[in-house]
Amino acid sequence: MNCLLLYDVTDDRKRAKIADACLDYGLDRIQYSAFTGDLTRNLQEELFVKLRTLLGKKPGRLLLIPVCATDWEARDEHNQGDVGIFAAEEDHV
Amino acid sequence: MNCLLLYDVTDDRKRAKIADACLDYGLDRIQYSAFTGDLTRNLQEELFVKLRTLLGKKPGRLLLIPVCATDWEARDEHNQGDVGIFAAEEDHV
Repeated sequence: MNCLLLYDVTDDRKRAKIADACLDYGLDRIQYSAFTGDLTRNLQEELFVKLRTLLGKKPGRLLLIPVCATDWEARDEHNQGDVGIFAAEEDHV
Repeated sequence: MNCLLLYDVTDDRKRAKIADACLDYGLDRIQYSAFTGDLTRNLQEELFVKLRTLLGKKPGRLLLIPVCATDWEARDEHNQGDVGIFAAEEDHV
């Protein structure tokens, strides 16, 4: 099932580790702090537990939402120019 | 219907205007660049057109997804400490 994963994490190293974990689970980066991809609910839950563990005691907000096909198809998307998301974490790893 | 609105916008003034528009439409800020709230599909579409207009020709990524009640209930959320999202745009307005 498709899901959307968002995070707000102030600590650079933690944020980079969280982004890496999302990529390891096969999610695609769609914004600086937003990933999406198709994972079973079990894997979604597993990833979320992993991200909580990676965050540890640092301040942060994590949100994972399963998104059904109907809602995903109905999304509005507008992508324009380069916002630098794909090089975003290179400095922090 | 509940919706989720995410954006990646590099220009500080544009980003602040986009955040203001989301608040004007009654959405709640849940992360630095993520809002959620209950809007009819018509209002969701209206807001999205407004955000595209506000962005103009600047680089940016905008995403609005309607989220059905089932998916919203199934979300995983973890909020810990202060990531400063509520004062986030004060410097830019």
